[in-house]
This record gives sequence, structure tokens and C-alpha cells, in this order.
Amino acid sequence: MQLVETDGGFDLILAGRAMLRQRSDAPCLYVGRGAPRVEMYHGHFDIEDNVEERVGLRYAALTRVSDGSARIALSIAPALPPLVTLTLSGGAQDARIHIDAIDPTLNRLWLRVVADKGEHVWGGGEQLSYFDMRGRRFPLWTSEPGVGRDKSTLLTFQSDQKGKAGGDYYKTNYPQPTYLSSRRYALHIDTTAYSAFDFRQEGWHELEIWAAPATIELWARDAFTDLVTALSDRFGRQPPLPDWVLKGAIIGLKDGATSFDRLEKYAASGAALSGLWCEDWVGLRITSFGSRLFWDWKWNATRYPDLDTKIKELHDRGIRFLGYVNPYLCVDGSFFPEAEAAGYLAKKLESDETYTVDFGEFDCGVVDFTNPAAAAWFAERVIGQNMLDFGLSGWMADFGEYLPTDVRLHDGTPGMLAHNAWPVLWAEVNARAVESRGRTGEALFFMRAGYSGVQRHCPLLWAGDQSVDFSRHDGIGTVITAALSSGLLGNAYHHSDIGGYTSLFGNVRTPELIMRWSEMAAFTAVMRGHEGNRPRENVQIDEDEQVLAHFARMTRLYAHMAPYLRALSDEAVATGLPVQRPLFLHFPDDPATYALQESYLYGADLLVAPVIQPGVDRWSTYLPAGTDWVEVWTGNLHVGGRAVTVDAPLGKPPLFYRQGSAWTELFTGIAAVI
Amino acid sequence: MQLVETDGGFDLILAGRAMLRQRSDAPCLYVGRGAPRVEMYHGHFDIEDNVEERVGLRYAALTRVSDGSARIALSIAPALPPLVTLTLSGGAQDARIHIDAIDPTLNRLWLRVVADKGEHVWGGGEQLSYFDMRGRRFPLWTSEPGVGRDKSTLLTFQSDQKGKAGGDYYKTNYPQPTYLSSRRYALHIDTTAYSAFDFRQEGWHELEIWAAPATIELWARDAFTDLVTALSDRFGRQPPLPDWVLKGAIIGLKDGATSFDRLEKYAASGAALSGLWCEDWVGLRITSFGSRLFWDWKWNATRYPDLDTKIKELHDRGIRFLGYVNPYLCVDGSFFPEAEAAGYLAKKLESDETYTVDFGEFDCGVVDFTNPAAAAWFAERVIGQNMLDFGLSGWMADFGEYLPTDVRLHDGTPGMLAHNAWPVLWAEVNARAVESRGRTGEALFFMRAGYSGVQRHCPLLWAGDQSVDFSRHDGIGTVITAALSSGLLGNAYHHSDIGGYTSLFGNVRTPELIMRWSEMAAFTAVMRGHEGNRPRENVQIDEDEQVLAHFARMTRLYAHMAPYLRALSDEAVATGLPVQRPLFLHFPDDPATYALQESYLYGADLLVAPVIQPGVDRWSTYLPAGTDWVEVWTGNLHVGGRAVTVDAPLGKPPLFYRQGSAWTELFTGIAAVI
Repeated sequence: MQLVETDGGFDLILAGRAMLRQRSDAPCLYVGRGAPRVEMYHGHFDIEDNVEERVGLRYAALTRVSDGSARIALSIAPALPPLVTLTLSGGAQDARIHIDAIDPTLNRLWLRVVADKGEHVWGGGEQLSYFDMRGRRFPLWTSEPGVGRDKSTLLTFQSDQKGKAGGDYYKTNYPQPTYLSSRRYALHIDTTAYSAFDFRQEGWHELEIWAAPATIELWARDAFTDLVTALSDRFGRQPPLPDWVLKGAIIGLKDGATSFDRLEKYAASGAALSGLWCEDWVGLRITSFGSRLFWDWKWNATRYPDLDTKIKELHDRGIRFLGYVNPYLCVDGSFFPEAEAAGYLAKKLESDETYTVDFGEFDCGVVDFTNPAAAAWFAERVIGQNMLDFGLSGWMADFGEYLPTDVRLHDGTPGMLAHNAWPVLWAEVNARAVESRGRTGEALFFMRAGYSGVQRHCPLLWAGDQSVDFSRHDGIGTVITAALSSGLLGNAYHHSDIGGYTSLFGNVRTPELIMRWSEMAAFTAVMRGHEGNRPRENVQIDEDEQVLAHFARMTRLYAHMAPYLRALSDEAVATGLPVQRPLFLHFPDDPATYALQESYLYGADLLVAPVIQPGVDRWSTYLPAGTDWVEVWTGNLHVGGRAVTVDAPLGKPPLFYRQGSAWTELFTGIAAVI
Repeated sequence: MQLVETDGGFDLILAGRAMLRQRSDAPCLYVGRGAPRVEMYHGHFDIEDNVEERVGLRYAALTRVSDGSARIALSIAPALPPLVTLTLSGGAQDARIHIDAIDPTLNRLWLRVVADKGEHVWGGGEQLSYFDMRGRRFPLWTSEPGVGRDKSTLLTFQSDQKGKAGGDYYKTNYPQPTYLSSRRYALHIDTTAYSAFDFRQEGWHELEIWAAPATIELWARDAFTDLVTALSDRFGRQPPLPDWVLKGAIIGLKDGATSFDRLEKYAASGAALSGLWCEDWVGLRITSFGSRLFWDWKWNATRYPDLDTKIKELHDRGIRFLGYVNPYLCVDGSFFPEAEAAGYLAKKLESDETYTVDFGEFDCGVVDFTNPAAAAWFAERVIGQNMLDFGLSGWMADFGEYLPTDVRLHDGTPGMLAHNAWPVLWAEVNARAVESRGRTGEALFFMRAGYSGVQRHCPLLWAGDQSVDFSRHDGIGTVITAALSSGLLGNAYHHSDIGGYTSLFGNVRTPELIMRWSEMAAFTAVMRGHEGNRPRENVQIDEDEQVLAHFARMTRLYAHMAPYLRALSDEAVATGLPVQRPLFLHFPDDPATYALQESYLYGADLLVAPVIQPGVDRWSTYLPAGTDWVEVWTGNLHVGGRAVTVDAPLGKPPLFYRQGSAWTELFTGIAAVI
């Protein structure tokens, strides 16, 4: 880290990269005050800020400290007292900028980071629409991502009208104020406050933070892969994938006891199976919107008679049973009174009453994870005793995005600061429960919500609730963007609901969609099905012979890849590199790869270009320069550095491996899997 | 005007009303810098500001001048030089606040005006959705108002998708940064810059202005009517309504020569007629969207053979002929090359080329009205010689809202400042042409676009292009809000297209809509029909016997009211009071009237509550306290100060007159008009 004083300012340079540039006519920091209006409706947030003041701090007074760090006092004018101090510290490759407000009324910071014209930026947590975020400004705030997520579509319009649920391109269950730059540095804002990235300007990026103090962390590395490792070191390494999951697909069914019968149809089809996931293991609640789960997290023996013994029988066949949990407790369940009596539920701001959230004809309490006793209770009493001890090998750890901002919490954190922290607290509760039974890296829960640090606790992401279609902002293709963006931040393992989840307003699954999604899922960390939100209105894998046969073959492909996936998991444990990787990670010298988001490297050696459009049997994809590529299905050799168009009928997703790969035998074996 | 110095600030008090309150911890003025992004598409503007700085000026140094005015230097801190000077001047009832920026880089001002919790505010130009603007923040920028204007409706969504045309509640052809307050003062921002009203706060209103200098003008009066007169004095008094128009309705047809045949059907129905308005007098252009007018402003003898003699024949029967004009010249017309050769057309910013605007498969030049020679040429050559001298007695002077912001003008005004000024320049060109022929107050043109000062030139507003429906934000009811808001600012005469104009996406007129609209139009300044944008897909008045008979009776009602309307016109000439008035104007002591926008006083004595919902035959309306009201159709007496529900079948719009009115005989005669 170099701090160069200039006439009227300074430059902060990290490993040769200009990071901050302060001048009296171009300050790097603006500060001010804002008063937001926040509305939440079923996990959708409408947030508007009223910025009362925003002023550039044009004058910098610099004091160097003997340890190489420096303190900079920033003020509006030399005649005025400083409003903010920057403490800069770091080594050759890493730096920290700690921003502290001297004026306690300041609650907005806008920091400008030097940018290049052609720069690309990636990350932002799990982004679903745009991998390269340059040219956009958007907030980092965990929420429902929305249905449709594209204001130009009728589906989004209908969703907006019914439940304010249409969403937008930047909305995500898992935001994170962290990005990587093509200038080969990474930046993280260490805050849980509402923040925003503004990547629209040519000469700078502007980071907006709704709180002070905040710390900016910087890493500069020559290799993009080293940046990923640095971030994984920072946010936490995940355990390896369990061996059992590599054996085949997790079948998602929610049909009560019938689920077990249907599983046999999958087995009979020759599908490679690793698990049966039944989210309805807790029983149902009938509402005017249809069947919902009963949010009281334990075995429902009415809906699943003899589940305890059936789990054991499945286990003996090498098939695990998985369930469902989320951080809310319905007021009419058994856990709610227990938690309320113990004082474990979040309260209203202005009274001692329990805060309840309406989830659509039923109300729930919010377990207050800022209370260590409440978190421990949930981990032991709910997950430990009623899930792990009962026999579950995994579960969907749903939600995490709904913490209201007008809630009173045990440790006094205001809702605006606790909201983004919630997914990580929720992940930690799950991870601690798993750890308490010594099953870390063996029991597998998966989450959609996240924030900085979720990496340390959550062993597997899932991409949330896509619409059951090929749409640009809410369909099959978004899960690639999700895997790539979250993967760069140290989330090594990602997967999605095969066939998507959300079917609304007559939008239903096609067999083609399920088949294309299966082809992609075979080349991700985990292959898992889902019946969707309206199972009876949508075709299911086991209801269509062609789909079932196709799916079964894809599960065998997934199982075929197990040795490679195990190696990728080992690599993730060692380096934090994700299973699914953007092409530029291994081809940093080919800028044509920088904005690609529809294809990925599955490990370093296999390029996957899933077909994410309907009605096509040819597919074009770019092959990076610097190596030659072998097309898996034909053995054809392609020179890297250009786009190719190949046959891509159902059952043959475009796959290319590096010529000369150590895994050549496994890759050539793909075509032989029938 | 009183200026009271306080510890750390001052209060500006006008006739007992606190207007500004400056304290070091609560400044009345914020200043800053912004850089807007402006996109225009067919008159729809998408404007977003990037506010780089916004800072409160907490310190005031006051200097009193001998003439009673004062100069105040405002700064961020006592140690810093002032950034802005306020010059305050005025008398007992009126005041001016001139804001001048000392720092020339400042281009944003935010002034806070003292507000009361229960205060109501009205005006803002011609507002279509909300009469009482309290609780809202919106810009003042002339544009298309949009189709649907309600993001929750499918029509708005469809319009947004096709042509970015959905609009929003605050979009209007005629904004004006002027309002009246229930605290009995009026405020005007003397600027043509983009500005915004923020009426959302309890303790203050915030006026945002995208330029400095700017002047705030204030009027305090004990009577609301006196505030209207003060504004009319300020913005200009309009000529009286011509006698000829009071005789009946202006029939709107655009059917070429057939229009004359169809007029006879109206005449045969017994309708009272004053004019025939044919916008297609200039001929047609066929585009893929359908027939458009040919934008070359002169008689088209192919579409209207013998028009010159027919105009004379009509005139002899007491029926005037009206046409159409707008401020653009199509590139393939006869006037375009004439204007271009003379240098009368606006140019591109970066070259000497003529700026052309795409109006949908045809391009037009923009006559540069900042060039006095160009304005004079348009007034004389186009309007004078080809319209007035040809025999027209009036016209729709369409558009005025489309001036692009990236245009180069003769007098050097930047587009961002010229845009809002354009409607007034356009009105002035029309008024000068009329004046040049000595026909002020006799030839009648009507405009939808406006801005501060349009009152001085435009003799009649029309409410623009409503959708052909009863919808809340774009239907029949919006024209009442339009008349009331614009009327308070000194626009005495207002009217609308009977039956609405815009029929898109299958939204078509019903006979009921036309009939309800006719009932309302009979009690406005002018009664005029329009075939709408898609005449063949929508029912026309003369195509339905019931509708025609109903319309004819309403025209006779309008003609019956002529003596009263003449008196209202005389009153407008004398005082500036509008023909259509909000109830509170004459019932200031009844706060229940303050937010009413669905009924109006037609002059001081007749309360009109048009039926603006479909499928009803009863109607509720509030009758102000302080007088008793006689229901016109029944003679029933109602005590003021409460809501009544009355029968309101087709043909009997709810009408109430003040008991004891000097016009009682005329009002009781209404029921006798058959």
C-alpha cells in the first residue's frame, strides 16, 4: 500500500493500482444524512431515501503513523473541523480503509473508488440477472428476488399488482457488498447496513453506505483465482461435499406418504439417487392460496406415517432423507409458546409484545438470533433434536430475508442494521446444529438467503425460486449468473430447483424446460428436483416417460462425474475456488470472456454451455483463447478464441474439455453414459 | 413583510404568516450540484438526477436596506464565504425572495417553506390526478401526460411497453411552479428550469429548482378569491369568451368533406351549434399507425374541396369553422424549406444541421420561437395568412411539450431552460397572429400545453387527451381536476374532448361515457366534441340516436346558460376568477371543501357534481356549509354542510344552486330545457 501526497490531496495505491484519488476539486468521500422510507410486504421491500445533505470532503489532513498506516482527517474546508477520519492500513497486497464519522449525525457515506473506462466488475453476492455489473447502480439488501423481475413482462406486472412481487433485476436473496474488478483487485464493504454500488461512471465507482463507521477491505492479486482464495479466506471456507450426495440426484417430492411410492418409479427408471427431499415432512396448512407447510419444525406423523423407520430403510439403500426448516414459528404450533415463554422471540418496537409476521393467513414469531440463548435453543431443540436426531441428512434452510426493520432485538441492533445480517445468523444456527452432532461435511443444508460471511456456515447455496420458464430475468439462465457471481465470493457449491419453482398466472413448466434444466444440473455441485409451488398444475418428472428417462440418464451423468466433482470439492477446501467458474477465472488474458454469463467452467477443464432457450437444437458459445477444446459428444476439436455453434439436441448439452486434460478419460466417457 | 432576527437565524413573516424559518440547525435553503440524465421519446420524458452535493446553508448574515428590503448572505459555516444571497423585498401582502448563487457551479436549490400539519395545497399548473397536492413530491416539467397514468392498470402497462407512454399521476401538458395554500397565501417560482414540489413533510414544503438565480414570489390574502386575482394579475388576464361560442357546441369531425354532411345530422337533431372543428383540414398522412395529419399548416383542397366557400356558408348560418396547427413543420411540407432557408428552425447542438424530431414515420423541424423573426414569420405567414385570412375562427394549437433538451436555439437558451418556456412562446405566437388581425376575444384557439404566463396569451385551455373511459387517472374525472387546478392560477376558461380521445388496446368509448361527458361539458366554458384517435373503432355521437338526442339536449342546456356564462366571462375579465371553481373558493370557512375535486362551482352560484362513474343512477356529493342548496331537477332544498345522495339518471347531472341566487330564474329554467 502506497499513500502518495499530492497538491491538495492524496492517492492510495495498492500493488500498483490506484484505488482512491483525493483532490480538493474531486473528493473521494461524500458524507451526509438521509432518512429512509421502508415498506415491507411478504419479503419485498420498497426503500426510498430522502437525502437531506450530501457534501464532498474536499480537504484532507494526513498523519502518517510509524507502523506504515496513516490517518487522514477530512473536512469540507480547511477552516472547518474534520467530519470524518480515514484510517488506512495494509500491506503490499491488502489494505483497509476504516471510515469513522466524527460528527455523530452523519449516517450516509459515499466513497469513490478509481475506475477505468473498460473495467468489468463482478460479484455483489448472488446476482441473478447481470454478472458484469458495470453500467448499473443498485442496492445490496436481502429480499425476495421477485417473480418475473423484468418490468417489461406481463408476468412481472401481474406479480407486482398481486402482492408487490414482481421484483427487479438486482433483487436477490443473497446480496453482498463485495466485488472483484478486472483491474485485479477485490473490494468489500464491512457493514450490514443498506448499501449500494454505483458502477455507472467512467472514472469512478461510488459505494453508498447507510451507516458509519464502515470499513473498506481491499485485495490486489495478479491472478483472479488468488482473489477468490483471498475472499474465501476472508469469508470462510466451506466443508467438502458429502460423499453420499455425489452418488446421484436428490428427488424433490412433497406428496406425503405417496412420495415414497413415487421415489420407486424414479429408482425403476435407473436414475442414480442420493436422496429424497420432502419439504412437507412437517405437514400442511390449507389456506385460500393453496397448501402451505405447517411451520412447526418436526415430523408430522399424519402426513408421513412411519417416517422414522422409512428413513432408516432408505438410508440402508444409500438414499438419504431431507426435510425443511425456516427461522419462523407459527403461532399455532408447538414451538411458538415454548420460544415465547423463554423470551426468544423478537418484539415490537414500542411494546413488549411479540412481533408477528403475516405469511399469508398465518402469523409467525421471529426467533431472535441476536440472543445467543435463542440461537442455541433453535439449534439444539429444533434442528438438533427434531431434525438431525430424527434422522434427517439435510434440509432446505429456507428464508432469512424477511427480518422487518421495525423490530426490537435482544442485542439492541436496529432493524436496518440487523436485516442484512439475518441470513448469516440463520446459517450459523444451522451450521452449529450440524456441528453439535459432529456431522459437518456430512449433513447437507442449503440456503437461498445470504450476506457477507454466509460462506463460513452454509455448505450449499440454492438459487431460490426461479419461474418455470426460459425468461431472461427469472428463468433457467439466471441460475448460471447466480452460481458465477456467488462463486467468486467464495461460495463453492451452488445448485437450483430442476425445472424452476414459481408457476403463477398460467405460466407452467414444459417437459423441454425440465430436460434442459436437468442437463445443466448434472454439471453443478448438486442435482436436486422440486415439484414447484403448484405441483398439480405443472408436469412432473415422473409423469412423463420421456422426461423421466432423460432425467435418469442425466443423474447417471452426474454420478459419472463424481470423481471429478470430488476433486473440485477438494480444490474448494484447499483454495476456495468454486465448482462453477466464470471463464475469465482461468483465462484472464482473454478479455472476450469477461462479460460472459451463459456458460461456465465446471472446474478448470470442462466448459459447460447449457441450452437456456426453448425450441433450439443448435447452440453458440465462446471458447476461450489459449487452448484447444474437444467437443464431448463428437470429439471434434475447436480452436479457442472464437465462438462455435454446435448441435445441441435434447440430451446433449454443449460440453467442451481442454485438450490434454488429465481428466480426458472421464470426459470422453460422458458420451458413453446411456 | 416582516423579517425577524432570531438567535442563529431569522423568520420571514408575511401578513402574519410564517413563510421562511432559518435556524443554524434547520436551514431554510440547501444548495448543491446535480447532473441529470434526460431521455425523451415522443413527448415522454425520463429524467433522473444525480445529485453530487446538497448542503444546508446554516449561517445567515443579514443586512437591512433602507427601502425595507434586506439582503441575507448564507453560508455553510461562519468561517466560510457565503454561497448564496437572498434578497427579500415586498410590502404588507406581497413579497419576493430573490435567490442568487455566488458560487457559479451551484445548479440546485432546495428552499423550505414553513408548512402546517393540516395544510392543503393546490395548483401546480393543470394537474390531472390530484387537486390537493399535499403528501406528494413531483416535478414540474411539461410533457405528455401519458395513457392510463396509473402503474397498477393494464392499459398503463401496455402503453408503457409500447412507446413508454403510460405516464404517471403528476405528468401534465401544463405544469406551473405555483401553488395556493390553505394558509391563504400563494407562492410562485419564477423560473423555467426543471423544478419539483415536495409536499410530503409535516413542517415544511420543499421547493427544488434546477437553476440559480431564481425568484420566489409570495402573495398573502385573506380571501382565496383575492389570491386568484393576484395570480391572474401576475400571469395575465385572458380575453372574454367570444359571443359566437356561447351559442352552442363546437362539433369535432375529421372526416374530410363528409364532415359537412355529418354536421347536418347534428343540426337536424336540434343541437345548438356554434362551430365545426375539422383538424384534418390540412390533409392526411397515412402511416403504419393509421391516419395522421399532414403537418404543413394550410388548407388541403383534396380532402376539403371548396372549403373556402363552405366556411363562408357556415358563417352565414352562425356556425364558425375551426382548424388545427402545431409548432412543427414536416420536412416534406411547403413551409419547412421556407423556414429552413430563412434560418428559422432549431439546430443540433454540435452542428449547423436542422434538428428534426421523429413523430412516428415522419420527421419535423422545430420552429425556433426564441428567434423573434421566426416567431413573427409563423404568426404572419402560417397562422395569419393561411389560417385567419383563409377564414378560420379558431383552432386547436396543439403540442408545445416536445422541445428536446439537446437542441440549439437562436437566443442561446439551453434546452433544459427552454423546454418549459416553450408552451408560452407557442401561445404567444398564436395570440400575436390573432391580435394582428384585430380578432382578440373573437377568434378562439385552445391549447393543452402551458407554463407560467400562458394565461396572458392562451384564451382557452383544453384538458389534453383523456382515455375514453371512467378511469381514475386518465378518464372523465381528470378534466374536473384539470379545470380546478389551472383555474386557480388564472386560467379562466377550460374545456375537454367530449367522450375523451385516446382509444388504445381495445379500450373504446361507450355511449354512456359520451353522455356523461356531454352533461359535464354543458357546464364548462366551451362544449366541444372530438372523434378521438380511432374514430372508426369508437362510437360517435351522430352514430347513435340516443346519444345524439342526449347530446343535442345538452347543447341546448349549454346555450340556455349563455347569459350566466357571459356574466362569468365578464367576471373573469374583471377579476381573473375562473368559470369552474373549487368549492372552497367561495366557502373558505368550510374545510370539508378543501380536498374536493369531483365537483365544482360553475360561477359562484351553481354547484355541478358530474357523474364520473359508469353504471350508476344515484350520486353523492358534498354541499358546502353556509347556505342552502336547491336541487335543479327536483327543486328539493338541501341544507349545506353535508353530503347528499340524489337521483342522477342519464340526462340529469346533479346540479344545485344557492337558494336565493340572482340567477334563480335561469337555473329553474334548466329543467324545462328539452
